This record gives sequence, C-alpha cells and structure tokens, in this order.
Amino acid sequence: MLFRSLHSSKIQYLRRRCFSSATAPHVLKLGDVLRKTRIFTEEDVLQYSKVSHDSNPLHMDSAAAQNVGFDGPLVHGMLVASLFPNIISSHFPAAVYASQTLNFKLPVYIGDQVVGEVQVTNLRVNKNRYLAKFKTRCFKNGEILVIEGEALALLPTLDYRAVEV
Amino acid sequence: MLFRSLHSSKIQYLRRRCFSSATAPHVLKLGDVLRKTRIFTEEDVLQYSKVSHDSNPLHMDSAAAQNVGFDGPLVHGMLVASLFPNIISSHFPAAVYASQTLNFKLPVYIGDQVVGEVQVTNLRVNKNRYLAKFKTRCFKNGEILVIEGEALALLPTLDYRAVEV
Repeated sequence: MLFRSLHSSKIQYLRRRCFSSATAPHVLKLGDVLRKTRIFTEEDVLQYSKVSHDSNPLHMDSAAAQNVGFDGPLVHGMLVASLFPNIISSHFPAAVYASQTLNFKLPVYIGDQVVGEVQVTNLRVNKNRYLAKFKTRCFKNGEILVIEGEALALLPTLDYRAVEV
Repeated sequence: MLFRSLHSSKIQYLRRRCFSSATAPHVLKLGDVLRKTRIFTEEDVLQYSKVSHDSNPLHMDSAAAQNVGFDGPLVHGMLVASLFPNIISSHFPAAVYASQTLNFKLPVYIGDQVVGEVQVTNLRVNKNRYLAKFKTRCFKNGEILVIEGEALALLPTLDYRAVEV
C-alpha cells in the first residue's frame, strides 16, 4: 500500500501545522461527517476536459448528451468525485489517499448544487498516523444520491479545524 | 444505475458516428486491451488543483511531500485515474461511465511516464447497448503498477477506431 512507504517519524511536522492556528481543533471520531458544497460551471467542465484530455461529447455537446437520454451536458463523474479527496485534504493537509470506490448513480448537470459528504466508518492507528475509512457520497439538489462509494486515507493527525464549505 | 435512464432507441445516432470514418473499425472483445500514455507536468497539477479546488500541499509543496516520505510533489491520484474514462471515451465517444474502483499503490511524480490500460473482462448486451467491465491499471516508468481497479461502462457500440496514444 502507498502509505507503507511513508516516514512516520516525520509526521510531527504536519501535527504542528494543525496546531498553529488559534482556533481550537476538533478531533475526528467514528460517525463524523465532513461536507463540501459546490456548483460545477461550464467553465469547470471545460477546464477539466483540458487537463484530463477527456473529450467525451457527453460533457460538451448538448445534442450528443440528449441523444443518449440526458437532459444536457454532464459534469465529468471524476470531477464530481474529486470532492472526496478535496474534503479530506482540506481538513487534513497532507492526507494520503489510498483507495476510492465510485458508483455513479445519476447524472450531475452544469449548475446542479452538489453536496459531497464523507463519513468516518473506521479509524485505526498506523505507526503514529491514522488509517481512516470513509463512506463517501454526493447528493444533488437536496437529497438525490448521485455518487456513492468508500475511501481509505492515511491522516497525519485526527485534529482538524472547521473548514469553510 | 445511471445507464437505466438512457433512451436506447437513440443509440443509432452514435452508431452512425463510429462508422463515419473510412478507417475500418475494430470490434471490442473479451481480453482486449486499450492504452494511453501520458506524462503529467507541473502545469497539469496546477490546473487540476484549480479545477478540483484540491489544495493538498502534497501536490504543490516539495517540503510537505518530502516530510511525509515522498520524493517530491505528487500528481493527484484522481488526475492519474482520469486516464481510464479518457481511454474508454476516446475509443467509444458517448460511453457512460457507471463505476470505478481505485487502489492507489504507489506515488506518481511530475515527469513520470504513465501508461493507463483498460482490459475487457466482461461484455454483455444491454438493450442495444453494451455493458463492459474493464480491469483498469496504470503503470509508471515501465512496469511499476501505481493504480489498479475495475470500471464498468455502457458503450453505444463495440466498434471503434484505433486511437492514437
């Protein structure tokens, strides 16, 4: 696994970073939920297409999307799913992402309000670091489940500061 | 599942697209492997950070990456993994991505040559479309496995033209 190659002795550097703020940290525990809300724009889809080299017409061409039954161009599933490592690393800088499963249940369209959510389902100490398992879900426009899966990440600490969503 | 909402009667539009080239199409079958090679640059990482809003210092800050045991800034795992839908949709425009599992085994650094590979492990007809299961892997610098997993995609046709990698 990726995290086995890490040098646990150096984790104090990251731990200090988290305590450098005057804000009292929270301590992550089983069941905790961290969220982030985002609305993906046409420009986001264009920029993601450029950086990923993904030119699937479903993301750029209304006619192509409508011809296979969608209402319009889709946001790339992997762009929506990027909310998960984003949420984890914004709460735990230098977290190492070890695995992710993704089931794309329903389309996300440009302009949909998407809430990404990670919920802690397992936590264990791993050589002064913490291996955290998360249930990962995205909802659109309220409670419509669009992506579900699980992630595993190696956290430098369980302490975090509340992050603006 | 996402693909259940598609209108199968409209798939002929996509089928015609694939036959519009003078190039003779290949027909996808069990065991087939499709590949793409890419070297991720510092600019790619910067652009991906912007569009994903992922500011994990492991991707931008050499000192932070080295402090947890890496050789330098990492390419985002989800950016590397974007090779999979990229390969699928570049061979099958308007393919619908239904699921993906990702195990991040080893880090990918800026400048590493990465080969993404998808191999067909199951194929079945689904209302005039094709549900394809792929073994998905990325290798760096030769045969070093960096990401492995599986993907499920709904293809409008099994015919494709060879795509430049």
